[in-house]
Amino acid sequence: MIQYGVIGSGSWATAITKILTDNKQKVNWWVRNEESRQYLTVHNHNAKYLSSVYFHPSWLTLYHQVADCIADSTHIVLAVPAAHIQSVLQDLPVTIFQNKKIITAIKGILPQNNVLLNDYLQNQFNVPLQNYFAVMGPCHAEEVASEKLSYLTLAGIDEPETKAIANSFKTNYITTKTSADIIGVQYAAVLKNIYAVGAGIAHGLDYGDNFLSVLIANSAREMANFLRAYNSIHKVQDADNNYAASVYLGDLLVTCYSLYSRNRTFGNMIGKGYSIRAAQIEMNMVAEGYNASKCMNELNKNIGANIPIAHALYKIIWENAQPRTMFKEIEKVLV
Amino acid sequence: MIQYGVIGSGSWATAITKILTDNKQKVNWWVRNEESRQYLTVHNHNAKYLSSVYFHPSWLTLYHQVADCIADSTHIVLAVPAAHIQSVLQDLPVTIFQNKKIITAIKGILPQNNVLLNDYLQNQFNVPLQNYFAVMGPCHAEEVASEKLSYLTLAGIDEPETKAIANSFKTNYITTKTSADIIGVQYAAVLKNIYAVGAGIAHGLDYGDNFLSVLIANSAREMANFLRAYNSIHKVQDADNNYAASVYLGDLLVTCYSLYSRNRTFGNMIGKGYSIRAAQIEMNMVAEGYNASKCMNELNKNIGANIPIAHALYKIIWENAQPRTMFKEIEKVLV
Repeated sequence: MIQYGVIGSGSWATAITKILTDNKQKVNWWVRNEESRQYLTVHNHNAKYLSSVYFHPSWLTLYHQVADCIADSTHIVLAVPAAHIQSVLQDLPVTIFQNKKIITAIKGILPQNNVLLNDYLQNQFNVPLQNYFAVMGPCHAEEVASEKLSYLTLAGIDEPETKAIANSFKTNYITTKTSADIIGVQYAAVLKNIYAVGAGIAHGLDYGDNFLSVLIANSAREMANFLRAYNSIHKVQDADNNYAASVYLGDLLVTCYSLYSRNRTFGNMIGKGYSIRAAQIEMNMVAEGYNASKCMNELNKNIGANIPIAHALYKIIWENAQPRTMFKEIEKVLV
Repeated sequence: MIQYGVIGSGSWATAITKILTDNKQKVNWWVRNEESRQYLTVHNHNAKYLSSVYFHPSWLTLYHQVADCIADSTHIVLAVPAAHIQSVLQDLPVTIFQNKKIITAIKGILPQNNVLLNDYLQNQFNVPLQNYFAVMGPCHAEEVASEKLSYLTLAGIDEPETKAIANSFKTNYITTKTSADIIGVQYAAVLKNIYAVGAGIAHGLDYGDNFLSVLIANSAREMANFLRAYNSIHKVQDADNNYAASVYLGDLLVTCYSLYSRNRTFGNMIGKGYSIRAAQIEMNMVAEGYNASKCMNELNKNIGANIPIAHALYKIIWENAQPRTMFKEIEKVLV
């Protein structure tokens, strides 16, 4: 018997809770903020995120303590931003995830120690990769709220369990696919946020649609370069013959082209001349591509993949390089 | 000494003439319509297409007769719609292209006999593939007019000549790449028009951004499937390890996502319930994806590539199948 616990109450956590409850799964939901939890109890919808989505109270159990939420659940969906997950989990007992299935909905690397979530969980809580799964888009939470047909990929190395989890996410507006490439889909999700910042910068610099399509095609190429280089070093077979599946290319496209994309918006402001700090203050948030850029740059020192676009974006975002100058460099490597 | 002749005066022909003259190449330009030719002579710009683009008269020689334009040129750029090229060329002497280099700017298959232009030129005028080249996008003419940086790929099996031609197309807003995959880039250009109609239909049927990204990623996948199947049958090596270069994926993206795309507009009307005929009348033109769909469906009977999206679109466009019903079929094949 599966009992889901959802950790996090942002827009993606809210979308996942909607999907699971629409699939007739009761959800234990950890909502940290007292006021948000009270509001949900009284009004049956999240005040801050996807506020159009109403939940029938009988499907939800709200939790104040994250440890209680985990203890009462068999399958834990982690859906807080990558930068905050450690502060949420760090004081929990080492054994808390024993015999639990963990499903990451986090699209990022943990910036504190530059690892994917599965590495952190393995080191900190002895979670074996066998018990670790990922739920990945392309899927903007806003379209889940309006029940637009979307595809989710569930990845994991335990194939029967991956399929069982995928079944829990199926609704009339969610189609699920499964994949064994648990590491690759996570890196793809990180990289696409970086490239979406790049697409935004290009737009802000007043490049046109023709150039943008060349940039994004080459970003897809780089993503495949990175995944192949990673697989080659780790002696893993490439998951897909051309990485043109929804969870790789599709997620890159929706993030680079959609107006919902915060990474693209962040990039657009940088292209228009905002400083990194000013763009973050103006947006009142940190776009995931910001940390991702630093993490991937660090990681790639070991992988050595040919990813010049990501490298140039790193220089803009973290080393104060001029966007205009760096894009002249990017222009030279595009094919 | 290269002397370009441009055959055609639509928006893409006008854009190419601008590029070549900006590259300091004198151009012999065949403009069929008497009135358009007169207008160009007096006003130094094309009245109907890219009217913001002015030409210095000393760079242009306008021709009334296509045979004269070809005779006076060494390099002939063919830039009329695929459906009209035969009527333009058919009465010309068999030897007219002897020792000429032909550069196709046509993104289509000749619908009358379902072949690529190089096959027609070989059969009709004994043009060897060695003398045949293609200039391909992603490149909306409108962005050439406004000098937005764009990438063109020149393809041909004669590598030094391909490079020489590529040099003629370089300007401060055009970067050129070369490719030996003269057949593949042409099929890619045909297929992307079909998939852009599909993206338009999806939009017209009110699918969202999430789904559109899945559809387009899978369209890229199908394009690669077709090219690999073609190469396998013809014992040609695949041109590119993942077909995520500008001339393949980039051109697909700009055509599927850009608001300039007529194929997408055509599809959007079909998705919204217009009949094929009504959409064509309303647009006052035939979108290239319309004929392309029939041609590729016919061609693939011999190739046998796995292209279910293109097949479903064929049924909508040519066999009167309901868009809603066929998209339910498409939904099932997406990964």
